[in-house]
Amino acid sequence: MTKADWIAVDWGTSSLRAWAMSADGKVLGEARSDKGMGKLKPDEFEAALLELAEQWLGTTTTIIACGMVGAKQGWVEAAYRSVPGTPLGQPMTRAAAYDNRLNVQIIPGLKQIKPADVMRGEETQIAGFLHVEPKFDGVLCLPGTHTKWVHISAGEVVSFQTVMTGEMFALLAGQSVLRHSVAVDGLDENALSQAVSDTLARPETVGARMFSIRAEGLLTGLSPVVARSRLSGMLIGAELAATRPFWLGREVVLIGDGKLSRIYKLALGLQGVEARIADGTDVTLNGLRAAYAMQRVMN
Amino acid sequence: MTKADWIAVDWGTSSLRAWAMSADGKVLGEARSDKGMGKLKPDEFEAALLELAEQWLGTTTTIIACGMVGAKQGWVEAAYRSVPGTPLGQPMTRAAAYDNRLNVQIIPGLKQIKPADVMRGEETQIAGFLHVEPKFDGVLCLPGTHTKWVHISAGEVVSFQTVMTGEMFALLAGQSVLRHSVAVDGLDENALSQAVSDTLARPETVGARMFSIRAEGLLTGLSPVVARSRLSGMLIGAELAATRPFWLGREVVLIGDGKLSRIYKLALGLQGVEARIADGTDVTLNGLRAAYAMQRVMN
Repeated sequence: MTKADWIAVDWGTSSLRAWAMSADGKVLGEARSDKGMGKLKPDEFEAALLELAEQWLGTTTTIIACGMVGAKQGWVEAAYRSVPGTPLGQPMTRAAAYDNRLNVQIIPGLKQIKPADVMRGEETQIAGFLHVEPKFDGVLCLPGTHTKWVHISAGEVVSFQTVMTGEMFALLAGQSVLRHSVAVDGLDENALSQAVSDTLARPETVGARMFSIRAEGLLTGLSPVVARSRLSGMLIGAELAATRPFWLGREVVLIGDGKLSRIYKLALGLQGVEARIADGTDVTLNGLRAAYAMQRVMN
Repeated sequence: MTKADWIAVDWGTSSLRAWAMSADGKVLGEARSDKGMGKLKPDEFEAALLELAEQWLGTTTTIIACGMVGAKQGWVEAAYRSVPGTPLGQPMTRAAAYDNRLNVQIIPGLKQIKPADVMRGEETQIAGFLHVEPKFDGVLCLPGTHTKWVHISAGEVVSFQTVMTGEMFALLAGQSVLRHSVAVDGLDENALSQAVSDTLARPETVGARMFSIRAEGLLTGLSPVVARSRLSGMLIGAELAATRPFWLGREVVLIGDGKLSRIYKLALGLQGVEARIADGTDVTLNGLRAAYAMQRVMN
């Protein structure tokens, strides 16, 4: 069996992912489950972790974890660090475990007081990106349930902004009256582009145009894939209208899930912003490696 | 037992309401249930109606029904009539019934081709309002799950606009991440007013400010009632930004549920629009009376 020198963990709301790592940062093994923070009580985290990672344990092993595992409803609360500041920093918070082979260290999230905002997990991806491009000066966009826009300068997070576009889309497409007209999958790039452009041209009208997706479904048989693409374009257009100070005239790098990042790249391209895409898993692992290295230096 | 000369029915997505009526339009009895269109298959409507109305049936009785009962997923589809046009008009659609005492007539909804929009039920309330104020020239606003803004002139519906504010609020307050920070009830008028004004001043930023409700809950202990009021104010502010051509410089009458109408009245008042409020049940009954009278003339 593979034994790990340390273990890297990305523990979000809906899933748990762990990697067995060598001392010099190579991936020796990987495992995942759907036991995200949202499904666990505080005393259930240890068992969920052991289910994946016990196979890699020898003696006491350092586990570096990021994400919602450090939220108030998580294993143990890891107090936020403040911005402006570096994405990673001491102290990490140790989670109590019955199995004394486990030395679980949780990376703190970031907070911004005005306008109020928080992140957990993305700070590690930001650190991973900056590990490879330490001189980057521009904006990182991390699309997801709660998309984060992050202004980076001189190796620090200067400010950031969360937009709930992914969650709004899931609620509207899956649970509102629009669900009768919207396909569960598929993308029409023209419909998406048109909706992004229309919404950016007149962002104040988005509330008035949303129900037309349902009405056109009833009256003119609007294609469900076009309907889905239009809804997506409206919400991303509204997001771009709200985050213009972040992306206008900046270098933008998109981080994360391929399909969603490609939609954001398309939408930004319509505004003349040529965004790059960075792999989400790569930046997460690099961030966890950076946190492990920092922890070794401190101890 | 009271026998009805005819029966008035308001049959929406979530509830069913019936009134026993005299020939000259007096209310002789009233009953309601939660058997809205959303809970019924087509062959279950007759039983749901009889459950409430059988007590009032003598010989064959005319039943005048409005609302989602006439939708494609309802008892029988009552084809939309087009705007511009009067809110009510022939033909109504008869729903087939096994009980031959039932002569069920369903009022058609209204459709608008460009921008695409539809309504079912509100056309009856509009007719009821115009029955009392036939010379009205202005805008009716019917707040609800899907708020309708309706431009009325010369006794006709000139155009209308649906905004999904009520449904968005229910989804965001009840099911999104904001649910952790938002009270299930209560209203802080200052927080509501501030959010309406902020959103109308910069409607393009609403997407960026929504998550701050959650973040302030985490970081500064934002009161859940203030959080709820702010979310409500943001969404109504966004609605007013989207419907400005309807209310700006117009006479506005709000129709429907008291609490919600008072919130809209407050929000419109901040923009210098002194809206009146008309009782929702009164206008519904007056509209059903008008439809019954029209049907008698035609037969």
